[in-house]
Amino acid sequence: MAERFAFTLKAQDGSARTGEIATPRGVVRTPAFMPVGTGATVKAMFPEDVAATGADIILANTYHLMLRPGAERIAKLGGLHGFMHWDKPILTDSGGYQVMSLAKLRRIDESGVTFQSHIDGASVTLSPERAIEVQCLLGADIQMVLDECTPFPATRDEAKSSLELSLRWAERSKAAFASLSQPGQALFGIVQGSVYPDLRETSARALIDLGFDGYAIGGLAVGEGQGAMLDMVAVTATVLPQDRPRYLMGVGTPDDLLQSIARGVDMFDCVMPTRSGRHCQAFTWGGKLNLRNARYADDATPLDPESACPAARYERAYLHHLVRSGEMLGAMLLSYANVQFYQELMARARAAIAQGRFAAFADEIEQRYRTADELDDDSA
Amino acid sequence: MAERFAFTLKAQDGSARTGEIATPRGVVRTPAFMPVGTGATVKAMFPEDVAATGADIILANTYHLMLRPGAERIAKLGGLHGFMHWDKPILTDSGGYQVMSLAKLRRIDESGVTFQSHIDGASVTLSPERAIEVQCLLGADIQMVLDECTPFPATRDEAKSSLELSLRWAERSKAAFASLSQPGQALFGIVQGSVYPDLRETSARALIDLGFDGYAIGGLAVGEGQGAMLDMVAVTATVLPQDRPRYLMGVGTPDDLLQSIARGVDMFDCVMPTRSGRHCQAFTWGGKLNLRNARYADDATPLDPESACPAARYERAYLHHLVRSGEMLGAMLLSYANVQFYQELMARARAAIAQGRFAAFADEIEQRYRTADELDDDSA
Repeated sequence: MAERFAFTLKAQDGSARTGEIATPRGVVRTPAFMPVGTGATVKAMFPEDVAATGADIILANTYHLMLRPGAERIAKLGGLHGFMHWDKPILTDSGGYQVMSLAKLRRIDESGVTFQSHIDGASVTLSPERAIEVQCLLGADIQMVLDECTPFPATRDEAKSSLELSLRWAERSKAAFASLSQPGQALFGIVQGSVYPDLRETSARALIDLGFDGYAIGGLAVGEGQGAMLDMVAVTATVLPQDRPRYLMGVGTPDDLLQSIARGVDMFDCVMPTRSGRHCQAFTWGGKLNLRNARYADDATPLDPESACPAARYERAYLHHLVRSGEMLGAMLLSYANVQFYQELMARARAAIAQGRFAAFADEIEQRYRTADELDDDSA
Repeated sequence: MAERFAFTLKAQDGSARTGEIATPRGVVRTPAFMPVGTGATVKAMFPEDVAATGADIILANTYHLMLRPGAERIAKLGGLHGFMHWDKPILTDSGGYQVMSLAKLRRIDESGVTFQSHIDGASVTLSPERAIEVQCLLGADIQMVLDECTPFPATRDEAKSSLELSLRWAERSKAAFASLSQPGQALFGIVQGSVYPDLRETSARALIDLGFDGYAIGGLAVGEGQGAMLDMVAVTATVLPQDRPRYLMGVGTPDDLLQSIARGVDMFDCVMPTRSGRHCQAFTWGGKLNLRNARYADDATPLDPESACPAARYERAYLHHLVRSGEMLGAMLLSYANVQFYQELMARARAAIAQGRFAAFADEIEQRYRTADELDDDSA
């Protein structure tokens, strides 16, 4: 185990990169997909199965955990890793995004954001300093600065003043992190700027001047469409330093991931594999399937003959029966298979980059998914 | 693996017995608890974890499976074992009990019972012959005759004419089984007679005259109370042959099981461990716990330090958090731990019988559960 946080680039193929993030809790191979463990659980999965999929790191949500069961409680119980039986690295977001999407009666000012808990209505304040304090109480290996996730659409002026607030918060977050964090923990800055290339560049350069262990691209996948998202990824990645990991927040579909990797992104998180798994959708090497579809009622084919996941060995007819019956095992098996598919996709992407054939690999996957989507009209 | 069904008694301690049922799909150690896999899944559990708890056999419900996904469909897909990824023995009930408890617009006559499916309202007929046909299509290792589960309360006359109908159905079930079953499959008769000792004896003797591979005690745990239930178990067990397994249907709490074992019962099934697991209740070697209870919010004790179950190693504070948050992982872990507790209880019961100390063992467990129930008033 590394004594401290470090990123090593192993190979490049065009703008696509593969490397390793060393942390005291283990190595994260990049490109990396982080399953989302919102409330101290990757939904419907045992933590040992999350590890068995090949996930090197998971994400947990500061907003949810500070409200329930509470960061001080988790700290008193020994920290988030022990609490949720996950001993590999954890990245925590800063809570800012969920405050915007989940909380009620928000008030934002220079000091931070005050909001009403969506659980019990309690008034809670999140400042840059408190966001870092909470993440340190949780014991997160990679922490995020508090930012304002600029709403979409935003005018240029709105986007500019929003990113400037985020920059001031980033500076305060860094100062708090310097005094509260443990050796080996890392802090990432978050690039904002909506869909304005020059603002993305401004934000990135200002963050680089402050200096962070890694850089996230935030404020995307919020309604701007894949084309605009990828344009902003490309613009931002060009500015970011080669020797730091780059993390695209909250993204996305297999195609989103491959297109973003092609533009230089190293890390991702998304609820898609687990949420889809709870909604009868499977990601497979043959494309996306909707297991509710009547065509699977008598289909004795394993879910994904190409996957090494134990859950993917179950036959489609059985999974169809489970999801039609509302059985929890359906969600359990599909979540497991989906998270493993995302991990296998990243593993194959890493290998393709190392072998200089990433573009061909991405094309092939895109082709498979396009065909499957056409087949999978849910006529049931 | 045995070529055919056979029961071997290994030891007795008072009326308590321990032995082995040999089947072509493996040995069932008795006393045995069968987790309930109603709709081709033991709810919220992976089948390999069900096996890991020590379960030698599970129960599946004929009524549910004939309605969804359909017995002919499961047969075409290769049978229930392959369908649900469970290669050890399966016992199926005859469907009669669920027709009474779940279906609407029932009509019972000499030929069988006609009812409306609780899923889609379709009219379905279940005769003794069809109940066996369905169980053979599923490929059940131990099958049950179709009976009428006498409602409680019932007058003596009602109970008598009900058990007589069940006896005529038992005879027809046996004839159907003789022509449809595979070598090694077994058929059990079901003793009825409500809470009337002489009717229980009449029913048992008539079934013994017909001759079955094992004998179930049905129509209990339907509201008559533990005292009356145990009285009927004792009366019936006295009549039943020593060399055939005895199965008390739909029972029960840990204390119900131990009291019934003391009266000579060999097999049980009940939804209690899994249903309780989905409702925040844990069965442990220290007693029953309600994990919603606020007292567990900061409790760093493992769920059950005395259990060998991987799920029982999770701390109570974490389980409390999961169930309060409505996370599926809470139900998954508690179902797993509860099913394993029931299996460990049976394993310890078998050992106690073999060592001639069953009464002391049962007393100790009863004491532990009495204390825990007193402590566990849910004041949250």
